[in-house]
Amino acid sequence: MDPRMDNGLNARDLDRRESGNLIGSDKVEGTAVYSLNNDKIGTIERVMIDKPSGKVAYAVLSFGGFLGIGDDHYPIPWAKLTYDESIGGYRTDLSKAELDEAPRHGSDDDFDWNDRERAMDIYTYYGVPPYWI
Amino acid sequence: MDPRMDNGLNARDLDRRESGNLIGSDKVEGTAVYSLNNDKIGTIERVMIDKPSGKVAYAVLSFGGFLGIGDDHYPIPWAKLTYDESIGGYRTDLSKAELDEAPRHGSDDDFDWNDRERAMDIYTYYGVPPYWI
Repeated sequence: MDPRMDNGLNARDLDRRESGNLIGSDKVEGTAVYSLNNDKIGTIERVMIDKPSGKVAYAVLSFGGFLGIGDDHYPIPWAKLTYDESIGGYRTDLSKAELDEAPRHGSDDDFDWNDRERAMDIYTYYGVPPYWI
Repeated sequence: MDPRMDNGLNARDLDRRESGNLIGSDKVEGTAVYSLNNDKIGTIERVMIDKPSGKVAYAVLSFGGFLGIGDDHYPIPWAKLTYDESIGGYRTDLSKAELDEAPRHGSDDDFDWNDRERAMDIYTYYGVPPYWI
């Protein structure tokens, strides 16, 4: 059997930027994130990739601000986001209230991604194991 | 000691899209790839992320074509690329001749990322363990 038939999809039907378990980084960027009760929380700005391991360390969620001016940036563990095809965006079980208290960085590039203590704070806040484990 | 001082960099000097081990997906996209003898091989189009594990499955290298028309797309294991700050791009030990024979997909979206056999072919070709191991 042609292994491409495994999931009942013909290869020609597939978006080059997404297929089954794989998704293109450029498709993730700009995608909306919704809460469990369908409020739009924000937008994925980018994912931060750990170079040695090739693992996604964070998805950076942004909301507020205008054209990137004055907005806040929230590094979120990848595991907290689930793509939901029916809404064309990510679903998260985080509430807006939880995000209000969440670790963030501003527009002035003052976030040190190498600060392991700070990174651990983020993972502790969200209650998931850190990307380097 | 302020942990941000660990690597001798002040946090304010850091690009939000890159810092130490972490790099933003939007910084990877569009970045040039050079061979060991400094020939520009192509450009990173995107990275493909494995959704369940949050691991980069491939970097998609493109070369040839014009404005995306008629160009070829080469899924490359992340481990084959090393960022070299001095050239502002990725370095790979792949030769152009090796890439000529490498697995690729065309512009017509006819690449099935879910085809495990095909995926294994790619990793076998490059001689590195696949992302799902």
